[in-house]
Amino acid sequence: MSYGTTFPLWRAAAGEAWDAYTRHAFVEGLKDGTLPRAAFLRYLVQDYVFLVHFSRAWALAVTKAETLDEMRACAATVHTLLDGEMRLHVAICAAEGIAEADLFAAEEAPQNLAYTRYVLDAGHSGDFLDLMAALAPCVLGYGEIGARLAAEAGETPYSDWIASYAGEDYQRACADVGRLIDAAALRRLGDKPETSPRWPRLCERFRTATRLEVGFWGMGLVG
Amino acid sequence: MSYGTTFPLWRAAAGEAWDAYTRHAFVEGLKDGTLPRAAFLRYLVQDYVFLVHFSRAWALAVTKAETLDEMRACAATVHTLLDGEMRLHVAICAAEGIAEADLFAAEEAPQNLAYTRYVLDAGHSGDFLDLMAALAPCVLGYGEIGARLAAEAGETPYSDWIASYAGEDYQRACADVGRLIDAAALRRLGDKPETSPRWPRLCERFRTATRLEVGFWGMGLVG
Amino acid sequence: MSYGTTFPLWRAAAGEAWDAYTRHAFVEGLKDGTLPRAAFLRYLVQDYVFLVHFSRAWALAVTKAETLDEMRACAATVHTLLDGEMRLHVAICAAEGIAEADLFAAEEAPQNLAYTRYVLDAGHSGDFLDLMAALAPCVLGYGEIGARLAAEAGETPYSDWIASYAGEDYQRACADVGRLIDAAALRRLGDKPETSPRWPRLCERFRTATRLEVGFWGMGLVG
Amino acid sequence: MSYGTTFPLWRAAAGEAWDAYTRHAFVEGLKDGTLPRAAFLRYLVQDYVFLVHFSRAWALAVTKAETLDEMRACAATVHTLLDGEMRLHVAICAAEGIAEADLFAAEEAPQNLAYTRYVLDAGHSGDFLDLMAALAPCVLGYGEIGARLAAEAGETPYSDWIASYAGEDYQRACADVGRLIDAAALRRLGDKPETSPRWPRLCERFRTATRLEVGFWGMGLVG
Repeated sequence: MSYGTTFPLWRAAAGEAWDAYTRHAFVEGLKDGTLPRAAFLRYLVQDYVFLVHFSRAWALAVTKAETLDEMRACAATVHTLLDGEMRLHVAICAAEGIAEADLFAAEEAPQNLAYTRYVLDAGHSGDFLDLMAALAPCVLGYGEIGARLAAEAGETPYSDWIASYAGEDYQRACADVGRLIDAAALRRLGDKPETSPRWPRLCERFRTATRLEVGFWGMGLVG
Repeated sequence: MSYGTTFPLWRAAAGEAWDAYTRHAFVEGLKDGTLPRAAFLRYLVQDYVFLVHFSRAWALAVTKAETLDEMRACAATVHTLLDGEMRLHVAICAAEGIAEADLFAAEEAPQNLAYTRYVLDAGHSGDFLDLMAALAPCVLGYGEIGARLAAEAGETPYSDWIASYAGEDYQRACADVGRLIDAAALRRLGDKPETSPRWPRLCERFRTATRLEVGFWGMGLVG
Repeated sequence: MSYGTTFPLWRAAAGEAWDAYTRHAFVEGLKDGTLPRAAFLRYLVQDYVFLVHFSRAWALAVTKAETLDEMRACAATVHTLLDGEMRLHVAICAAEGIAEADLFAAEEAPQNLAYTRYVLDAGHSGDFLDLMAALAPCVLGYGEIGARLAAEAGETPYSDWIASYAGEDYQRACADVGRLIDAAALRRLGDKPETSPRWPRLCERFRTATRLEVGFWGMGLVG
Repeated sequence: MSYGTTFPLWRAAAGEAWDAYTRHAFVEGLKDGTLPRAAFLRYLVQDYVFLVHFSRAWALAVTKAETLDEMRACAATVHTLLDGEMRLHVAICAAEGIAEADLFAAEEAPQNLAYTRYVLDAGHSGDFLDLMAALAPCVLGYGEIGARLAAEAGETPYSDWIASYAGEDYQRACADVGRLIDAAALRRLGDKPETSPRWPRLCERFRTATRLEVGFWGMGLVG
């Protein structure tokens, strides 16, 4: 499934960082099942805290939107994160004996702080499009990872995780976000966004967020 | 219906401004039907633009929340405003021949700019509770006006408007916001919020927002 | 003195609003001395509160700058406002028997709230350039008014006020801000900023801020 | 020299994290001269980028201040950072052959992103005091480190660095910030701040920022 026309340009500009993120040892461990359960749980707990701040970033996008479509798309994402994806985490963690209150109160790892607060600052310091460039690697990267792993993975205890990101719902959400970004870029940069003087900085935002995703996987691995 | 324990204290501290707002000539004109239709439509158009920025303020609250309950309550309000209350406005205006694109593009009156941007700045300059104090007069004031007018009004062409704010859905939303504010105050100020050194400033925020509501009605009247 | 190349374009796009602001009855009353002293003092008190929030807006610009030059220029303006212009107001008001504590505690007029909070929100919702477009009418409009009144005014009790905005210091500050805006526009929109899809919205921000300046003078007149 | 009454309470509440920060191997290496020059330069380059974002955080504090004293104190700090401390870094780096443009363009390390963006988010999500709690560990921790190293250090190539933080100017700035924090706490929490329900969260902010300072030193060591 395609995630629009802006995302592939940003991804290409991110260079090796993109593969370092989407083909990280953590990801390959999910695929072939070699990822230790402890690492996965550590990741899940941090990812729950991540979703709290990621929801805040999408809510910030509502405050920075210029059209009603932008507002509604971002508000819907906040809703999906707070009521859908977070409940999924809670259910998985509950099955492992971790309560939601523990999730919310978990000490945030520095890699988590780095990523989420960078995204929020991209929004506060720039405009809606700066924020989108910092949000994109997570949303669309997980879509890409999910789709690839669903195609490539054999037997693995992490097939549920893979299925949720490869599934129709998540893939449709990615396509929607891709369209949102394309429309936002068209509105602010015109129909040749790569020629805008803002383009290098937007690519840089995307690449920095991608670098911080690499760190996030690394946190899961080393604890 | 009660809107909690903090709201009555703020309302009392607002003094005459509260009556100037909730018993404004515009409101009484809705009640007895003497409000000119042109004034009502002028108000509706501005109120649509108001809801855009009011939704942004509730989204800002999501970014400033400290608990998941606060986040979810504010995100639900954003959803209600963007998908419920705004569609209601669109339907009423459509019946009068005003298209949604015209609503979104309407030139904002200074009284509208003053109120909405003051609320947003209350959020940006203070914390979650500062933002709540600036949001409360609108949400809960309309609840109070709706309930009173439903009890007092006779025949009036504005009975639909009255019914929507007097109705169970809106009144329940007010009760929810009242509880949200009480919990937010307890969390940040303790169980005797009036003794907090922050109290006078919170009352001042509530009163300033109330003053700006008076101006908003006035805008409808004078055009 | 010229204030750069972007400002004249924005001013032209503001249409009649620009003259309504820079040739307002309040301004003409300063020029020919017919402005009542009470109106001038009312304006001065509100203008002091205005400067508090205008300083906050320039500080916000520091947080949204992309280059060290932008950061330093905005920080220098904060300093000039807080330590220069505000002390000037304090001195003038003190001569009239109004203490600084009274100035800081003055109840903000709705027209004041509308303007300053609109500027702050322009910054929060957009990027550095959106903020500049909202800040420009005040800074550069006063420069233009000061220069014109210095050339046209005869005997008037407001010659000190005129001299301070017509003076070399203020005019140089205006030239600096004009250059800052030109560089910011070049950096974000390229060398033909009028062809950017963002241009209409930037013009609209400038025009809205200009409209709110008209209201600010009006507040002084009617009290 | 004392840095006020609030800081010692926050420092005590940070527990072992405070020593992990102020007695980090990097700090001890500065003291006894064993810190490799390459590590020091890596730190200096990142610290320059740090100062850019730290200045932004102090500028954010200007926008969140409630009194003119708070505004002026924070604006003065922005000025000191942008025009004083950063120029010092530029001079030291220039002597090592590193140009200012390279400093500004240096790729930010994740530990740098984590700390500075956490501080900025503390400001955006909370109020002035939340921001102060996140800013305090850096400002006052460096004061404490400088003073201790000046007393304990023997011959070391880093005596200039030590002298600048142990020096009268920096120590006076620390005392000023300590007073600013005490006044801000008194104003918002009353004269027994430890009894406020907000106290644990403020301590947590201070501790998280301290944890991120530990990471910042670590970045210098491992490159």
